[in-house]
Formats: sequence, C-alpha cells, structure tokens
Amino acid sequence: MAHQLGIGLLGLGNVGGGVAHLLIEGRDRLIERRGLQLEVRRAAVRDLSRPRRVELPPGVLTTDPGAVVDDPDVQIVAEQMGGIEPARTLLLRALRNGKDVVTANKAVIAACGDELFQVAAQQGVDLMFEASVCGGIPIIRSLTEGLVANRIQSLYGILNGTTNYILTRMTEEGGTFEEMLGQAQAKGFAEPDPTFDIDGTDAAQKLVILARIAFGSAVRLEQVFREGIDRIGSQDIAFARELGYTIKLLAVAKLTQDSRLEVRVHPAMIQAQALLASIRNEFNAVEVVGDAVGTQVFYGRGAGQLPTASAVVSDIVDVASRRSGGGRRAENDWTREERLPVVPVEEVVTSYYFRFVVLDQPGVLAQITQILATEQISIESVIQHGRSEDTVPLIIMTHEAPERAMRRAVARIDRLSMVREPTLVIRVERP
Amino acid sequence: MAHQLGIGLLGLGNVGGGVAHLLIEGRDRLIERRGLQLEVRRAAVRDLSRPRRVELPPGVLTTDPGAVVDDPDVQIVAEQMGGIEPARTLLLRALRNGKDVVTANKAVIAACGDELFQVAAQQGVDLMFEASVCGGIPIIRSLTEGLVANRIQSLYGILNGTTNYILTRMTEEGGTFEEMLGQAQAKGFAEPDPTFDIDGTDAAQKLVILARIAFGSAVRLEQVFREGIDRIGSQDIAFARELGYTIKLLAVAKLTQDSRLEVRVHPAMIQAQALLASIRNEFNAVEVVGDAVGTQVFYGRGAGQLPTASAVVSDIVDVASRRSGGGRRAENDWTREERLPVVPVEEVVTSYYFRFVVLDQPGVLAQITQILATEQISIESVIQHGRSEDTVPLIIMTHEAPERAMRRAVARIDRLSMVREPTLVIRVERP
Repeated sequence: MAHQLGIGLLGLGNVGGGVAHLLIEGRDRLIERRGLQLEVRRAAVRDLSRPRRVELPPGVLTTDPGAVVDDPDVQIVAEQMGGIEPARTLLLRALRNGKDVVTANKAVIAACGDELFQVAAQQGVDLMFEASVCGGIPIIRSLTEGLVANRIQSLYGILNGTTNYILTRMTEEGGTFEEMLGQAQAKGFAEPDPTFDIDGTDAAQKLVILARIAFGSAVRLEQVFREGIDRIGSQDIAFARELGYTIKLLAVAKLTQDSRLEVRVHPAMIQAQALLASIRNEFNAVEVVGDAVGTQVFYGRGAGQLPTASAVVSDIVDVASRRSGGGRRAENDWTREERLPVVPVEEVVTSYYFRFVVLDQPGVLAQITQILATEQISIESVIQHGRSEDTVPLIIMTHEAPERAMRRAVARIDRLSMVREPTLVIRVERP
Repeated sequence: MAHQLGIGLLGLGNVGGGVAHLLIEGRDRLIERRGLQLEVRRAAVRDLSRPRRVELPPGVLTTDPGAVVDDPDVQIVAEQMGGIEPARTLLLRALRNGKDVVTANKAVIAACGDELFQVAAQQGVDLMFEASVCGGIPIIRSLTEGLVANRIQSLYGILNGTTNYILTRMTEEGGTFEEMLGQAQAKGFAEPDPTFDIDGTDAAQKLVILARIAFGSAVRLEQVFREGIDRIGSQDIAFARELGYTIKLLAVAKLTQDSRLEVRVHPAMIQAQALLASIRNEFNAVEVVGDAVGTQVFYGRGAGQLPTASAVVSDIVDVASRRSGGGRRAENDWTREERLPVVPVEEVVTSYYFRFVVLDQPGVLAQITQILATEQISIESVIQHGRSEDTVPLIIMTHEAPERAMRRAVARIDRLSMVREPTLVIRVERP
C-alpha cells in the first residue's frame, strides 16, 4: 500500500510547472519504487485563465497562496515563486501549520534562512532547499550527507550559468562581452535585466547558502566580496590563453589557517588544465575539498525548468519518505552555528593579472615595476606585444600579495600620466 | 542527549583503519551536529599483535569475525574485508542478527547483492554500499535520492583509477603502457598484480552495481563486455591527440530505444573537449544523463584509505540517524527488478578507430577500404604518415557500424598478407 500525501505548490510557472509535470508523469514510478502516492492538491497561480502544459484536476488552482499553505489536505508545500516577500510570510505560515516545506528560492533562504529553520525546528517539520543552489546538482545533499565525515577546507564554484556562458563564448568565438551577452539573452540563458548575474549577486546568494552548509557559518550577503565580469575584454581572454589560464566567474569559500572564512565572487584566472576550466557554457560546477575525501567536483545544469524541478521533487520524495515512515527530521547544518569570522577582503592573498593600458613610451615599465616593488609585489611574468596604436596593453602576472598592497599599488599606478585607463585586475586562483 | 550506537568493524586494515580513525577523530562533531554517539565496540582483525595507527580500548579487537556480527552491543556492522567469502556469510549472519550493515566491498555486492538485500528486507534492516563504487564520491546516494525524479538514459564512468593513471601518464609524458604501469605500482596506484584493473574486471564489477541502481536492472558480471588497455600503444595516444580525441577506459551503461541495456567496459576515444576527457591521473568520474536533469558529472578520488572510509562513515551516519529516529529503512532500487535485456555486444553500434599495421606497398589501402565497404562501414578519416620502416601504421576512423560488421571486416583484413599485426580497434564514444 502506497502512502498518500498531498502536495501544495506555490507558483506554477516555469519551475512549478516542471514540478507538477514530474510528479504527474512519475506518479506510477514513485508508487512502485518508493511506496509514495504524491498528489498535487493545491497550486497557487497569478492568473487562472492562463493555458498550462500540465493538466490538474478542477479546484486545484487558486489565486490565493494562503489557501495552499492552510489546506489541511496538503502535507508538503513546494515554493518556487522566488524573491523574499511574499515567499517568506507564506513559508512561515506553512511551517507553523505543521507542513514540511521544499523551496527552490535562493533569495529567501539566503536572507531569511535563520528565521525559517528556527520555526521548522520548533514545529518539528522539514525545510529543504536543494533546488535553491545549482538547479539539479545534488550539492546540498552531498555536502550534508555524503561528506558528513569531512571537515570542508575549501569550496570553489561556477555558480552562475549566464556569466559562464558569456565567458565561454568569448573564449571560444572571440566575441566581446556585449555581443555574447546578447547571444545569451537570445538563447534564454540570460534575463532581460541580467544585472544580478553579471555583477555576481546571484552567485553570492548561492555562496551564502553553500558556505552555511559546508562550514556551518552564517555569512550575510553584504559580507561576500563581489566583482562582476563586465570589464573583461576579448584581449584579456586572449592573454589568459597565452599564459595557460582560463577566465571564470568564481565563487570562493575557504577556511583559513587561523579558522576564518574567505567568501568572495569575482572573475578569476584558473589554470587551463584544472577541471573547473573545462566547465563550458551554461553549466555549473562546485569543487569541494574535504579533509578525508580530498577533491570532489559536482557538475550539471544549474538552472532550467526540469533540472530545477528535478531537485524540488527529490526533496519532496525525501520529506515524504520520512513523513510516511515516521522517521525524524532531516539532518542539516543550518542550525549549527560556528560564526567563523569573515576575512576582510583587504587581507585576502592571491596572485594577480594586471592589464595596464599605457602610452607606448620608454620608462613606463620601469615606473610601474618600481611601484609594485615598493608594495612588495613580485612579478612572475610580463607580456608586452608591439602595437601600432598610441596606447598598448602591458600585462603583468604577479606572485602572491595581499589585496591591500595590490590596491595601493594600482591606485598609484593609475595616477601615472602614462597610464591611460583604469587598470584591470583579475585574481589568480588555483582550485 | 546523543543516541549511543555500537559499531562493529569487519577488517581494520587500510579502509577499516580509516573508518575507525574518522569515527574517533569526528566523535565530538557527530555528537554535536547529528546527535549521534558512535562507538567502535568490536573490530575483527587477522593479527592482534600488529601495530595500528588508531587506538581502540582493550577488548575491542578480536580475531573472530563471528564475535563482531553476534555482539549484542553492536547495532551497525561495517565490512571492509573485500572478496566474496567469508564476507558474504558474515554479512548474512549480521543481517539475520538484526544489525544494519554497511559495506565497502564491491565484489560481494556485485555477486551476492540479490541474496543480501532479500535478507535485509526480511529483517527490516539496512544494507548500504556507497563505498563499494568510486570511493568517496557520493554516486549511489545521488542516483538513489538526488535523481529520483529522473529516468536515467545513460551512464558513462571512469571507474578505475589505475588504468586512468596509466593512460593519463602515457598521454602527458609519452611513455609506454609498461613504463607507466611500473610508475603506477611505484606510486601505490596499482596492485602488485594489476590484472583485474588492466583487463576491465574491476570497472565491470562497479558497473554491475551502478547499472542496478541507475536502471533497476540485474546484470551479471559475465554479461558485461570487457576489453582491457594493455594493447594501447604510445602511437595510439599520439594519433588520438592528432584527431582531437583522448583515450580512456570507459564503462558504459546505456538504455537503448527498444528498452534494452548496453553494458560494456573498454578503451574508448572520447572528444578531447568532453568533460570526461579532462579526468586525469587516479581520479574517477561518473557522467549520468537523466531525462529531467540532463547531464551531470560526479568527480573525485575513487580509492584510497580516507576517501573510501569517508563514504563508509557517511553510510554509518545515515543508518544511525534512521535507527535512532525510528524512521523506516533506506530506499534503494536494488530490490526493484526490471530485468532489461542486455544487448549482445555484436549488436552494439559505435564508430571505430582502427590501427592497421601494414607493409608500405601500393594497393594496401585499396584492399582494406574495399573490405570495409563490403561490410557497409564508411570511412570518416584516414591518416598515413610516411615512414622509413617496412611496416607502417594506417589509421582509419569510421562512421557508426554494428560491432558484428566491424569484427567480420577486421577478421578478413587481418588475413591479408600485407597486414602484419592483429588490427587494434578502439571504439569511439560521445559522452
């Protein structure tokens, strides 16, 4: 005999429609393999008259999301509306009504996770969020369960499909940032307003969630250093290749030797032969280093209707198995609280790629290298190709130095009369 | 209050010692984060007097494995002895005694899984085996839980670290198979007798387990087509690079359009830009394609003391959480039984790389291509470099053709007087 459980959906758009589709299409399989009969009993939508791909019985659709979270026939609420409000209020109400909650909403988890998990714990119900980070990739589950015996040492992620698509196409086709952003929008990999993708905010929200699970540490979005990819030019891509590197928008969370946490999102040069350099187009990947397992990488589609819906359904099945079997709540590390201090970005130490745009005159290299030397930044390599223009790019790769010294040096260099544009800095990482 | 549970270890060698180390070193963390106090109460060893890295209280060690599986203070038995007997008998006895069982032993799961899972189901206890495939990579958990909403379409794996190390070093250093096997043995990545690694048996055992979980289908080891890497020469590695490919020992399990299963392990040419081509040295990776999530890849160390022990401990924690929380048994797909028919290897269709070793005489290309044409095997490209020797390698890449036609063609070609060595065939895959 299969256990019957009622599912309520908050949102039946792209992801929500995918969840309904997978639950209906997979119904028999879930009964047979898991002994679970999962029925969509309520679904809140904005517009009842909109045609939908999935057919739900009459009476299931409602324009009142409160009707979903209050419905006594609903045991599990799955939310895929996005944004903080009204999602937060609805999820709290669902939890207080004793329902298990599954969400695909990174914004509400990153911003209100503490409050939501506290209420879930009080109520003895589950709050699951696999789909909020990296779509279909089971990264939350892997960190929580698969790597439970490990102390995580570092986590590097390509967490944003839009920017990875743009950087990959710039690398493989040689186009400019603007051209490839246009291409990403035409293919549906970028929003009409891609600001939060391009400037690193989307990746930073996901990093807040991953850092919490991997390191048990509450990091606020404002504590994540963020830099976007809009200043990366075709010439940087070409120089990176010449130097044996690939440019990626990288999210980094790293435990330091003095038990602090580095959390940052910025373009990074990574060695071309590193696995993360091979992550192409709209795909996501997360590299985790644990003290027992060593390096692991999880790769897949970080967005899209069915990949994200697949993660939502995996959480629903997980919760439903426990609910039907009488087991205790899911283990997760949200409520454990280590509050590792976040390293101020000025103290972060990396190597650097500098692109100085300088007048093609004698003495410029001497002046720039003199300033770097004053800040104790030592040079690994220099590229200066002959050009016919007035200004030429001068590329310098450095050894490791603190961000503070780098910033001081760049500020001084940018005031030199021979330097004609603000210097472009890309940090070098070795995941 | 933490739940106390007794752990019994069968084997305290490399992996078993790692499990004891992680349980002891992680003791406080598991109490604090999971509410579980896991105590190693019994451990069966071969030699009591052997010095060990982990210190266990007096009375824990025994040379009688029966004392572990019969101990009333042991609730969870973790086995890492390897091999079929006596592991099978001991695990059955543990299950019949009502104990949950965790195993790192691929041989016993691949060969006796049906019997073991049947007894576990009768007894209402858990049997977990994450560590039996790909060491620390949480692939069983990801297939069972993370991808539960998917119908798996194909699975490609680099499942054997020894052969991947050898092929990577041959590619990057240019050495011969024998030289790189020696290097792998010196570094501890290959056994003194590496037969089962080299000939594909080790990967095939893992594939039997993965196919069961991914496709719900019982495949016997004898049904997995196996071909080893010992005939791959440095020149094949060089030709592969010239053609834009990388050679890997690939494990393939694929659902066909007529609902049959291809299961095979053999060297394969894969496109150099595919992610699996970037898996270097002793690392493992599994690429899974699900109908909802699309392509996912899981990457990490497939062997080694702590990576494997990490997977054993993740299973122990999982089982212990359920046992302490009163939840029902773990879901897995072993007992579901679809018995998809296995496609006979003669019917498998791939493209091929042929290395013919021929006399450098006129007419040889005409004769060979005539035979391929007779078998309806069409040619994609040909490489023949001028050489000074009597015999020259002639490389032909083909379009897709059934294995049967390929074998007939090669048998006829190998009988030609101008052909001086048995032809080397490498199948081409596009994961």
